[in-house]
Amino acid sequence: MKLGFIGLGNMGAPMARNLLKAGHELVVFDIVQVNVDALIKHGEGRATAAVTPAAILSSGVDGVVTMLPAAQHVKSVYLGSDGLLSANVKGVVLIDSSTIDPMSAREVAKAARDKGALMLDAPVSGGTGGAEAGTLTFMVGGEESLFNQMKSLLQAMGKNIVFCGGAGNGQVAKVANNMLLGISMIGTAEAMALGVSLGMDPKVLAGIINTSSGRCWSSDTYNPYPGVLENVPAARGYTGGFGSDLMLKDLGLATEAAKLSKQPVPLGSLAQQIYQTFILQGYGGLDFSAIIKLFTKN
Amino acid sequence: MKLGFIGLGNMGAPMARNLLKAGHELVVFDIVQVNVDALIKHGEGRATAAVTPAAILSSGVDGVVTMLPAAQHVKSVYLGSDGLLSANVKGVVLIDSSTIDPMSAREVAKAARDKGALMLDAPVSGGTGGAEAGTLTFMVGGEESLFNQMKSLLQAMGKNIVFCGGAGNGQVAKVANNMLLGISMIGTAEAMALGVSLGMDPKVLAGIINTSSGRCWSSDTYNPYPGVLENVPAARGYTGGFGSDLMLKDLGLATEAAKLSKQPVPLGSLAQQIYQTFILQGYGGLDFSAIIKLFTKN
Repeated sequence: MKLGFIGLGNMGAPMARNLLKAGHELVVFDIVQVNVDALIKHGEGRATAAVTPAAILSSGVDGVVTMLPAAQHVKSVYLGSDGLLSANVKGVVLIDSSTIDPMSAREVAKAARDKGALMLDAPVSGGTGGAEAGTLTFMVGGEESLFNQMKSLLQAMGKNIVFCGGAGNGQVAKVANNMLLGISMIGTAEAMALGVSLGMDPKVLAGIINTSSGRCWSSDTYNPYPGVLENVPAARGYTGGFGSDLMLKDLGLATEAAKLSKQPVPLGSLAQQIYQTFILQGYGGLDFSAIIKLFTKN
Repeated sequence: MKLGFIGLGNMGAPMARNLLKAGHELVVFDIVQVNVDALIKHGEGRATAAVTPAAILSSGVDGVVTMLPAAQHVKSVYLGSDGLLSANVKGVVLIDSSTIDPMSAREVAKAARDKGALMLDAPVSGGTGGAEAGTLTFMVGGEESLFNQMKSLLQAMGKNIVFCGGAGNGQVAKVANNMLLGISMIGTAEAMALGVSLGMDPKVLAGIINTSSGRCWSSDTYNPYPGVLENVPAARGYTGGFGSDLMLKDLGLATEAAKLSKQPVPLGSLAQQIYQTFILQGYGGLDFSAIIKLFTKN
């Protein structure tokens, strides 16, 4: 297929490279010229650049994938004066893999539908490592028939491609999961730090929790206490992994969505404030499991 | 063995019956006479009654198991004027299966040790169902050699017998696990209610969480949203299971232990307050997964 790709940052660039690897031709756009140059060089003749998002459509692409930092960028790329929807998008498939709030995703999806485009929201989990390896999880909202047609395209960039329901539901699944993840990580950190301060060995405590009702991914797969697991950020000074600043972004999306839909999320809100506190202390670049630093002596 | 057993309530009575079933002789004490009568009748000649905790020791028992509601009862039964430690306990094994704060457990263990007794704290999880079926989990603190000697005795009442380290560590493991459980359950309830309010199908959302990083026991084994899982309290109006009032008790123990050891547990504290709010509304008798009622329209 001939595809557009907009947003060649830490996530978008490896995703675009995996599309090239799968044999697709790309027409790309990014506001950072060096990102564009690098991708075109990597494409060895199968990637070209467009001067605006709208200009991608003039190249006769079958679809466009976007991977952008936040809702403001998505709105600008889709709804702006040189945006995708300012061009003729009738019958074109638009896939937004940015993580944004569900309301904005639905607003963009409606505008796309009104212009005759076919749209999916498809945020990912798996981080830059998953983007490089092509093992991302895609949580996809939109028409189910379109999802089924596009599944193999997404498999060039990911391993688990999950249908979540109508437009915006990919974003809903991601914010709900990641809010629970943030809560579970802080809860695991509090429980591990409390148990150790009261005299327990951290490995013994983790072993008990992991075979009991406190069991969770944050404890059995990604334990924040140093020395409990190997090959996790806690074993390497909390480098790599999923940054605390990205967790804060997702908790912000969750609490904002909850506010708009008048849903109480007391633990989610406190989790958002706790990560905000942590990041104010200068730890935004550390993996999100480093939150246990707030509950242990350094 | 000839054993003492003190505390024949909803948990203690079935545990004592399982000891009889395993062939042990019992000398029992409870402040409620009908509980004593029922157990003696059940014992068919192998169970007798003592008039005080101390009187159990005069019967020449090898050990005593206690199963009491709270620390005040444990202190009274062990340290009171007619308590176990007022008698000759030299070489006698004392096993306290009550769930109490770790500091009280250590205070009692020290007093027992000073009198020459051998003591284990061995709180359980698994509820009345596990007590009846003999499938409880025992979290055990004390001397490891004593733990190894007593393991087969505890196996008459439970399935998983876990060594947690020195005196009081059984209680530490239980409060740490159950604090994380309370946090995870509220987090799961918030995430499920938020996702559904934003348009997701609860089964689809649970399926995504359960294969993602939000995965936890409260979501994949005990999901609070009605209709997601069969054979859980959410499928039968939140009857049976683990009462919200018992979860509040455990969160109270966790936050109190945290206060005494100056450990921050912000989510644990808020979880305690949320269950307190729920119970004030009259829901203490419902399973603790019913907390989702605070986040959904009834």
